[in-house]
Amino acid sequence: MGYLKEGEQLKEVSCIDCHVNIKQEGKIDHSKDLIMPTADVCGKCHLQEFAERESERDTLIWPHGQWPDGRPSHALDYKANVETTVWAAMPQREVAEGCTMCHMNQNKCDTCHTRHEFSAAESRKPEACATCHSGVDHNNWEAYSMSKHGKMVAMLGNNWNWDVQLKDAYSKGGQTAPTCAGCHMEYEGEYAHNMVRKIRWANYPFVPGIAENINSEWSEERLDAWVTTCTQCHSERFARSYLDLMDKGTLQGLAKYQDAHEVVEKLYNEGLLAGQKTNRPNPPAPEKPGFMIFTQLFWSQDNNPASMELKVLEMGENDLAKMHVGLAHVNPGGWTYTEGWGPMNRAYVEVQDENFRIREMVALKERVAKLEGKRTSLLDLDSTAEKISLGGLGGGMLLAGTIALAGWRKRKQNEA
Amino acid sequence: MGYLKEGEQLKEVSCIDCHVNIKQEGKIDHSKDLIMPTADVCGKCHLQEFAERESERDTLIWPHGQWPDGRPSHALDYKANVETTVWAAMPQREVAEGCTMCHMNQNKCDTCHTRHEFSAAESRKPEACATCHSGVDHNNWEAYSMSKHGKMVAMLGNNWNWDVQLKDAYSKGGQTAPTCAGCHMEYEGEYAHNMVRKIRWANYPFVPGIAENINSEWSEERLDAWVTTCTQCHSERFARSYLDLMDKGTLQGLAKYQDAHEVVEKLYNEGLLAGQKTNRPNPPAPEKPGFMIFTQLFWSQDNNPASMELKVLEMGENDLAKMHVGLAHVNPGGWTYTEGWGPMNRAYVEVQDENFRIREMVALKERVAKLEGKRTSLLDLDSTAEKISLGGLGGGMLLAGTIALAGWRKRKQNEA
Amino acid sequence: MGYLKEGEQLKEVSCIDCHVNIKQEGKIDHSKDLIMPTADVCGKCHLQEFAERESERDTLIWPHGQWPDGRPSHALDYKANVETTVWAAMPQREVAEGCTMCHMNQNKCDTCHTRHEFSAAESRKPEACATCHSGVDHNNWEAYSMSKHGKMVAMLGNNWNWDVQLKDAYSKGGQTAPTCAGCHMEYEGEYAHNMVRKIRWANYPFVPGIAENINSEWSEERLDAWVTTCTQCHSERFARSYLDLMDKGTLQGLAKYQDAHEVVEKLYNEGLLAGQKTNRPNPPAPEKPGFMIFTQLFWSQDNNPASMELKVLEMGENDLAKMHVGLAHVNPGGWTYTEGWGPMNRAYVEVQDENFRIREMVALKERVAKLEGKRTSLLDLDSTAEKISLGGLGGGMLLAGTIALAGWRKRKQNEA
Repeated sequence: MGYLKEGEQLKEVSCIDCHVNIKQEGKIDHSKDLIMPTADVCGKCHLQEFAERESERDTLIWPHGQWPDGRPSHALDYKANVETTVWAAMPQREVAEGCTMCHMNQNKCDTCHTRHEFSAAESRKPEACATCHSGVDHNNWEAYSMSKHGKMVAMLGNNWNWDVQLKDAYSKGGQTAPTCAGCHMEYEGEYAHNMVRKIRWANYPFVPGIAENINSEWSEERLDAWVTTCTQCHSERFARSYLDLMDKGTLQGLAKYQDAHEVVEKLYNEGLLAGQKTNRPNPPAPEKPGFMIFTQLFWSQDNNPASMELKVLEMGENDLAKMHVGLAHVNPGGWTYTEGWGPMNRAYVEVQDENFRIREMVALKERVAKLEGKRTSLLDLDSTAEKISLGGLGGGMLLAGTIALAGWRKRKQNEA
Repeated sequence: MGYLKEGEQLKEVSCIDCHVNIKQEGKIDHSKDLIMPTADVCGKCHLQEFAERESERDTLIWPHGQWPDGRPSHALDYKANVETTVWAAMPQREVAEGCTMCHMNQNKCDTCHTRHEFSAAESRKPEACATCHSGVDHNNWEAYSMSKHGKMVAMLGNNWNWDVQLKDAYSKGGQTAPTCAGCHMEYEGEYAHNMVRKIRWANYPFVPGIAENINSEWSEERLDAWVTTCTQCHSERFARSYLDLMDKGTLQGLAKYQDAHEVVEKLYNEGLLAGQKTNRPNPPAPEKPGFMIFTQLFWSQDNNPASMELKVLEMGENDLAKMHVGLAHVNPGGWTYTEGWGPMNRAYVEVQDENFRIREMVALKERVAKLEGKRTSLLDLDSTAEKISLGGLGGGMLLAGTIALAGWRKRKQNEA
Repeated sequence: MGYLKEGEQLKEVSCIDCHVNIKQEGKIDHSKDLIMPTADVCGKCHLQEFAERESERDTLIWPHGQWPDGRPSHALDYKANVETTVWAAMPQREVAEGCTMCHMNQNKCDTCHTRHEFSAAESRKPEACATCHSGVDHNNWEAYSMSKHGKMVAMLGNNWNWDVQLKDAYSKGGQTAPTCAGCHMEYEGEYAHNMVRKIRWANYPFVPGIAENINSEWSEERLDAWVTTCTQCHSERFARSYLDLMDKGTLQGLAKYQDAHEVVEKLYNEGLLAGQKTNRPNPPAPEKPGFMIFTQLFWSQDNNPASMELKVLEMGENDLAKMHVGLAHVNPGGWTYTEGWGPMNRAYVEVQDENFRIREMVALKERVAKLEGKRTSLLDLDSTAEKISLGGLGGGMLLAGTIALAGWRKRKQNEA
């Protein structure tokens, strides 16, 4: 397969094979002929692995278009990155570059197989995934490495043989606890460079349509595949019971998020967020104005976004994501108190407090306006008046809700 | 001792010994006879270790009932969990399950000695404790692992022999820095599965009666036992000096917490917290309504709790706990700036800001009311009026203070 | 060199050599003669290393006095600590001691070479630096250890020979990824106990004069020295390109910080921060009152500091510092989303929200005052009136700005 004939192997790989062309002979011009190898260059010889990785484009087709085809995946992570509106909109290019530094597995193989060893053993270790799969919105590393699974690897891993293939890790390598690669590259007992065959929640339970789909046939088949994974060590009853806990806990977090979202959306629909009527500039193109859009995590100007708007956005993008990830990686502190539910409880409380204070202020302003003898009119800039006029349109709330949902949907299409 | 005769040892332990009965013979029915072994099953052979663990019930009797007998401890951690009101009250059972996943050492041995190796060497490593003893309200792992002690273990531990018994770790195992087990299982030079013999602060300095007791004879004896522990490596003068620093630093954190607590409690007593009079539903049974109760860390609805109420609750449960833990594990960033004092300073500042804003609003409302020609009366729902009417009862403040203290005390009894 | 003759080596070092005097003979009195060895004691034999360390005093002379001579450095870190006003001012001595526990490399060698092994191999490991170089305001360890560089060391370091000297680490030790010591002790290919020869940003981009100086000849020479460091593994083009990204990204963070700073400084100049006019006690001596001073990170009383004042202070001292450190250690999550820009975006949003709410309140108060028939006068304590009166002085804003800058400058001189 690949650039080499069937069965042929390069005796050794030298600089020229990757940085000019495989088996290149003759003199080359260092100022013109050198290339930085992209994934397809590696694929010339490692066609099987390359093809497996590319297969992520086809094996993750969401049943209701919750997410574009093949996303999220390593195979399309660069495309997902550059199509994100905020990435294009950010005037701070070096900040945006921070996203790109991980979102380039589509183009390169050495994010996991670091140059110039390109070691398979290295990339089997959990630390190989940590730099990218960590942090405030996808803390897979933190959740896993602090779990009992992760700690067992930390304590015992030095005695295992990481040079055996993944399929032999437990039987021949001495492995006694799961690794990232061991679970996520496995599918019904086979191992491949396709990590998305068992994706159900995709880390982000708030993406519209994902929770609704979680008990569908599509999702149940993937759940069954997870049961196969877990039953390498655990009983089926144990595995199903735990995965059920994971789903239910995730839905509880989602409900808490939605409660807080509703409060802030209502404030937005009534025009009551800080500076909403007077001091809310549009985001830079190609981003469009909207309520609680992904862009606001990285861009802000004057009173766009409002503090509670950002709070709920982070609640969904960060805290709820971490809650699910904590559940998925069996890290109780990762879903109950340190991450997940605890922070979501706190965010909800802050949202409710702010809601009270905003409406307390509105009520007092109304009393003062009454004392001033002013009559609220449709032309008034006063936010309470605005609310009334919108209400007068008969569908203001519904309309604004639709806009917000459209914002969500757009967001979703911009991510992967 | 135990199920086996004196001196008798099982040649090998097979599935049936633990999952049915020790030395069980004959055919068993897999659908009926299998059990998941609990700690007492392990104790049939490992009676010494089981008995040591159970002894925690008797060796931690608080002199003034600050905490129920034998708590906190591994021996009673499940009881402590299920008796916590919020655990019972939470509608989100999968969130509550997050607590139970650690609070089950009372029932099982494999949280430390993971199945199916049950290795003593593994459980001597600090990572064995990390999954449970970490996180926002008991960050023992983070404080220790980032301390010089912890980092020495990380750098040098691979060269030590973890198979020797704890008593021989320094002399024969090559160990040159302390581990969790090495310090916490030791008592006056002897090692046992009883971790609570030197408990003085119990991680939570805000629990009423603990700080007041810290110089008592009871506590001084335990301090002396710590000095014995530290003097395995350090001089007595050094050890006593550092432990004195730990106590004093903890008391400084406690005082800062109490300052903030007083401000918020006063707001509560005056009915001025956000939504306190209009939108504060009771928590689910069996929890009872109260000010700054443990339940509010995990449960919230509408304006219960208020944001600053939760802030101070977290200040005590989390930040002050972390401050003490940082001091106890010799991690300067863990008590001075990253955790502990720094976050408590920030929380205090937020509380004072909010206090100003709330009272500024009250004052403005009064001016508006005066303009409206209203006279404040005892029947008014206005919070300022309420304060006056409470004050008129002559003991309102005192009464409310008593209620809050009762809330604390109840909380304390529900935890361990 | 040093206490020993040229070429002479102690056969072994015994207790008495360090704790009394080198090659001391005869009986000593344990109650009188023992000393705790300071760095100069180590320097008696290790004069080369001691002299290199001391040379930090001379090799970091800031071109425009941005920072006192030789600071920040290990050689003067104790002096820097005790000269910090808040260190002297803190009534909580045990909290202040947390700073001192790291700021004592000026006096001791065993913070890196832990007693009583004093191993060079140990101090070459990244963990040797972690306990001090970590945390909320200088998270070098977190940024590095989560970067691909740091994770490679975690995965592969066990196979390297740490006993070879730093200069031979890559060529003979098998090292394939950078360590703290490997990059920071190196200067133009030579290794020494002087860590400050390539300092440009000094972790704190907000210190006045540092950003302005970043393209000066002084700074460019140091940048070139970094290029030499990076080109041990990377191409020069790659190195220069990345270092350029680091500088630009840092400047973007600085600009965001300055935007937020301006908003809060304006509130301060107008006297509008919470309790500013009525409830802002002076800090304890020798600290002097001021806007956004370093002391407020650790000291607070009543409404000093205000919440947003502390927020922006932390934005500069913590978030912006972390953003630069993330960039400097090639940790994308460390500058774009988890630390750095993400948190600074959030802080900016909170500042703008608060600014809106404060001015909304001022406007409402004015309407009420008008209804009350009050005339604002220069003698009024009302903050809006104050603003007008200051504005009337023609230079109030400028004046206040100068005061704030003086506060900065004072702060800078107290740190290192």
